[in-house]
Amino acid sequence: MCLMTALRPWAIYSTLTSCGFLMCKVAGAMAPLGEGSDDPVLPDLPRGPLHAARARASFPWKELALFWEGPDMLRFKKNIFSALENDPLFAHPPGSLSLEKYRELTFLRCKRVFEYDFLRVEDLLGSPLRVLALIQCLGMYDWSLATKFFLHTLTFGSAIYSSGSERHFKYLPKIFTMEIFGCFALTEVSHGSNTKAMRTTAHYDPTTEELIIHSPDFEAAKFWVGNLGKTATHAVVFAQLYTPGGQCHGLHPFVVQIRDPKTLLPMPGVMVGDIGRKLGQNGLDNGFAMFHKVRIPRQDLLNRSGDITPEGTYVTHVKDARQHFSESLGSLSSGRVAIAGMSVVNLKLAVSIALRFSATRRQFGPTDEEEVPVLEYPMQQWRLLPYLAAAYALDHFSKSLFLDLVELQQGLLGKDRSARQAELGREIHALASAGKPLASWTAQRGIQECREACGGHGYLAMNRLGDLRDDNDPNCTYEGDNSVLLQQTSNYLLGLLVRRDQGGARIESPLKTVDFLEAYPNLLGHRFEGSSPEDCLDSSVPLAAYEWLVCYLLRESYQKLNQEKQSGSNDFEARNNCQVRVCFKGCFSNDSLLIPAPSCPW
Amino acid sequence: MCLMTALRPWAIYSTLTSCGFLMCKVAGAMAPLGEGSDDPVLPDLPRGPLHAARARASFPWKELALFWEGPDMLRFKKNIFSALENDPLFAHPPGSLSLEKYRELTFLRCKRVFEYDFLRVEDLLGSPLRVLALIQCLGMYDWSLATKFFLHTLTFGSAIYSSGSERHFKYLPKIFTMEIFGCFALTEVSHGSNTKAMRTTAHYDPTTEELIIHSPDFEAAKFWVGNLGKTATHAVVFAQLYTPGGQCHGLHPFVVQIRDPKTLLPMPGVMVGDIGRKLGQNGLDNGFAMFHKVRIPRQDLLNRSGDITPEGTYVTHVKDARQHFSESLGSLSSGRVAIAGMSVVNLKLAVSIALRFSATRRQFGPTDEEEVPVLEYPMQQWRLLPYLAAAYALDHFSKSLFLDLVELQQGLLGKDRSARQAELGREIHALASAGKPLASWTAQRGIQECREACGGHGYLAMNRLGDLRDDNDPNCTYEGDNSVLLQQTSNYLLGLLVRRDQGGARIESPLKTVDFLEAYPNLLGHRFEGSSPEDCLDSSVPLAAYEWLVCYLLRESYQKLNQEKQSGSNDFEARNNCQVRVCFKGCFSNDSLLIPAPSCPW
Repeated sequence: MCLMTALRPWAIYSTLTSCGFLMCKVAGAMAPLGEGSDDPVLPDLPRGPLHAARARASFPWKELALFWEGPDMLRFKKNIFSALENDPLFAHPPGSLSLEKYRELTFLRCKRVFEYDFLRVEDLLGSPLRVLALIQCLGMYDWSLATKFFLHTLTFGSAIYSSGSERHFKYLPKIFTMEIFGCFALTEVSHGSNTKAMRTTAHYDPTTEELIIHSPDFEAAKFWVGNLGKTATHAVVFAQLYTPGGQCHGLHPFVVQIRDPKTLLPMPGVMVGDIGRKLGQNGLDNGFAMFHKVRIPRQDLLNRSGDITPEGTYVTHVKDARQHFSESLGSLSSGRVAIAGMSVVNLKLAVSIALRFSATRRQFGPTDEEEVPVLEYPMQQWRLLPYLAAAYALDHFSKSLFLDLVELQQGLLGKDRSARQAELGREIHALASAGKPLASWTAQRGIQECREACGGHGYLAMNRLGDLRDDNDPNCTYEGDNSVLLQQTSNYLLGLLVRRDQGGARIESPLKTVDFLEAYPNLLGHRFEGSSPEDCLDSSVPLAAYEWLVCYLLRESYQKLNQEKQSGSNDFEARNNCQVRVCFKGCFSNDSLLIPAPSCPW
Repeated sequence: MCLMTALRPWAIYSTLTSCGFLMCKVAGAMAPLGEGSDDPVLPDLPRGPLHAARARASFPWKELALFWEGPDMLRFKKNIFSALENDPLFAHPPGSLSLEKYRELTFLRCKRVFEYDFLRVEDLLGSPLRVLALIQCLGMYDWSLATKFFLHTLTFGSAIYSSGSERHFKYLPKIFTMEIFGCFALTEVSHGSNTKAMRTTAHYDPTTEELIIHSPDFEAAKFWVGNLGKTATHAVVFAQLYTPGGQCHGLHPFVVQIRDPKTLLPMPGVMVGDIGRKLGQNGLDNGFAMFHKVRIPRQDLLNRSGDITPEGTYVTHVKDARQHFSESLGSLSSGRVAIAGMSVVNLKLAVSIALRFSATRRQFGPTDEEEVPVLEYPMQQWRLLPYLAAAYALDHFSKSLFLDLVELQQGLLGKDRSARQAELGREIHALASAGKPLASWTAQRGIQECREACGGHGYLAMNRLGDLRDDNDPNCTYEGDNSVLLQQTSNYLLGLLVRRDQGGARIESPLKTVDFLEAYPNLLGHRFEGSSPEDCLDSSVPLAAYEWLVCYLLRESYQKLNQEKQSGSNDFEARNNCQVRVCFKGCFSNDSLLIPAPSCPW
């Protein structure tokens, strides 16, 4: 396969997200199930214990499914599921696997997914949501597999494509064939959220034209890196770049070989291992690595934002250090949108399991002889149905946010320097920073409610509710801890107020999500006018309440922040002292309403 | 050991809880560590990364520990921990154990706990809390072990002692020596909460003077029974008792041999097995059993509430069927109090782990060079400190409720038939039915908050936060699903209102927990008068708010219930249609305040 053929799909995919993606057909790839197959895309459901409940539906479920997904997407997903179902490699073995065996099997399954070639280049531009759908289908099967696949292609591969330059494209075809297997090594033992404080170093040695990658101590070891534990042969390692004379140029990405691809033995100077059992996703081998003066060629600096001449001079087109830093981490930006979608999948699975159980489980009844399905109890409906509604709402939200992100990335790659493009970037960043916490926390609580609503049987591992909870859990803390992320959104909103107060700027945004704030603070004079449950079923009523609440919390936060500053706190203290409010305690606290209770208090 | 020696401690323990307990010294038992040992009961903590945070404490921690627990209890707990720490059988093996190995090891550890003889008869009456403390210490080590020990002695043993009669006491010494190993088989595949609907049968055959235990189908299989999966040789099996002629006398307990104690092979007619991996507590072998016309001697009916003559006539001193049923299940009654205490232990462990991590983990700071411990951030304090406070409050609550239960049981065994005794029973039942959900849910959410507050590192299995969450989880659903249990408390409260409205009865109770309701509905006219955070630190302010809220929810529930009944609903429908309210949606819903946020909204 020639290099340019291999590169084309990365470039195409990169118009869709900040990640590149290598997904063109090669000789010998297995053909996916024909899209023109005679199988109906939505066959009738088999008769069984659920038939009675399904027969009472007030709408035709097939029409809803077609409306929601469209026939092409349904067919695409069906092809993936059929392939996995019919391949013994994807059979769930009886009993539980050892950690080692599970990780090995996940690696083999990851390889097989490449062979299936589910995502064809010609389909990507017409249906960018297929990228999201593939990850989600793999996740519905097993999140360890989906994450392993995602980290190798979308995180490692795209980091090379988008942070590197032509001299690095030699790696890309090898990613597709899994000749090399990659990971993304940013987090260290002692630093996660504070990325700027990473302490791995890369010193340039002009005598050999090499970079020396070094971990000063264990606290600076790369840690938590997915794929690094057992299987990665290469890593994109973030380290502080030093030129001769000792000047530090900040965090840069480097391609570092970790293991011999034939033997998987560590390369000289690399101490690498598995960090052990986690709460979930145990098919994924998260690992650690320390580097003892590991030498790599100068060319393996990913030089999109800065490079070193053979003599050791640092050159960059980036003038501002903050812009530099943000470019280095640019390839992380789509992760939050993906995680929102992944969380929704977990919520959908859990709610389906719990509702099906509740429709067939009978307990108590009006007489000793007649027991009713527990789903008929208002309490059970009150526990589960809001999460069913949330699954639909968040599914729509996560898909539309993904498409907004596609628009943003197309602008970036097209070198769009307009004010609208910049504003769209800020708005999507704020939406993703709140949307990921909203989706992951709603899934976390929804799965827990589903598990409890299934009573004792919800505690049996075979129900998968435990795995879903465990596999969803990291969505709350990775790619930005939820509590930290929310501050990004509140900073964005406070910034709008400040710009309006100080410069008279109108509050509006490309996606119009903040335009209602133009009516701030007048909105705070509005009163809740609903007087019956029926009133609240008109969506304008809860929407007005939501707008009031946002304005109220913004005012409180803004005033508190100003008070703190006037009382002499520096920026760091001021933000800390009001962050509980800034972070929308009212909307997002552990103990308050992520999902409004469906019944009104009257 | 003579029979009467063995029986004495069961009787003593039964004055403390409804469970009996066999815990007297026998020849050859290992001596526990001397209580007069020279080791200080509270040695200084070793210097380490936590020293800086500890040095800033505003109070002496040893004084608090002594005040909270008392020196005797501290010594008792230290003895247990020292014994486990120094015994290689209790070492945590590196890596993860297979399910089989973990269950085998838990059985061996359970046996060793008996050999240590931690609970001495002479200490029990003076310090009944030691029973709770032993279970909690074992749980702090591993809940699988604590539950296994608890089920064999306090559940199986006490069921025989308190539901049987002298002819069954032959089993008791064998429990202590683990010659037999027991379980409590009530729940079936299709019935848990609705105990009356259990479908296992026991038909009496007067020709052989035997009872025939039979499971009509798989839905009637005993299921979830702890200890039954691998290790139980005997079970207390609940079945519907039929006399010749086909009359059913309701659910009764029977002693049924499950396995040969030498070979652990199932007895003829018993199909028994392990139900597989659970979300947690995987050292405990939960199992299922089906009985195919298994014959047991007539004498193995536990006949405290009803018996069969050799000819097949049913005889009972219980006149009322409801009383009969409740006597059969009487031995379950202390479970909820124990679970409240077990949940507190999990919360304490999780909060300790998270606070210690937060005091040493540094991230960000006022300058790039200076990072501050994350515990210094108001957000982190806001997330964790309310759970620390809850751990103290719930620890005190669960211990005092246990002592109230001891008083109740002493009355029961003393044949106290006073009105106060009956009212105390109802009040403790209502307190335990709300206290268990409050403690288990607070622990569930607290552990989750702790895990998330530790960021990525909170997701590593070695931190134990995952195990704590998984092991605490069944506390939310067993011994009465939390949501179902809460209805018991609300029924109690509504009953007080009804008795007051209809008969003019004064609202008061032995423990005075409901006396404030005597001021209902006038309390609803009270207004919140707090005007500053300082006001709210006076505990009378939140207490008044709590009283108002209870009255408000009671009024809403009471009115809704009356409306339902007036509109023609039968009792079953009326309760269902208002149960979301009755169940204190405002206090206990998934999305509202279990723990009030510590900061006021101004």
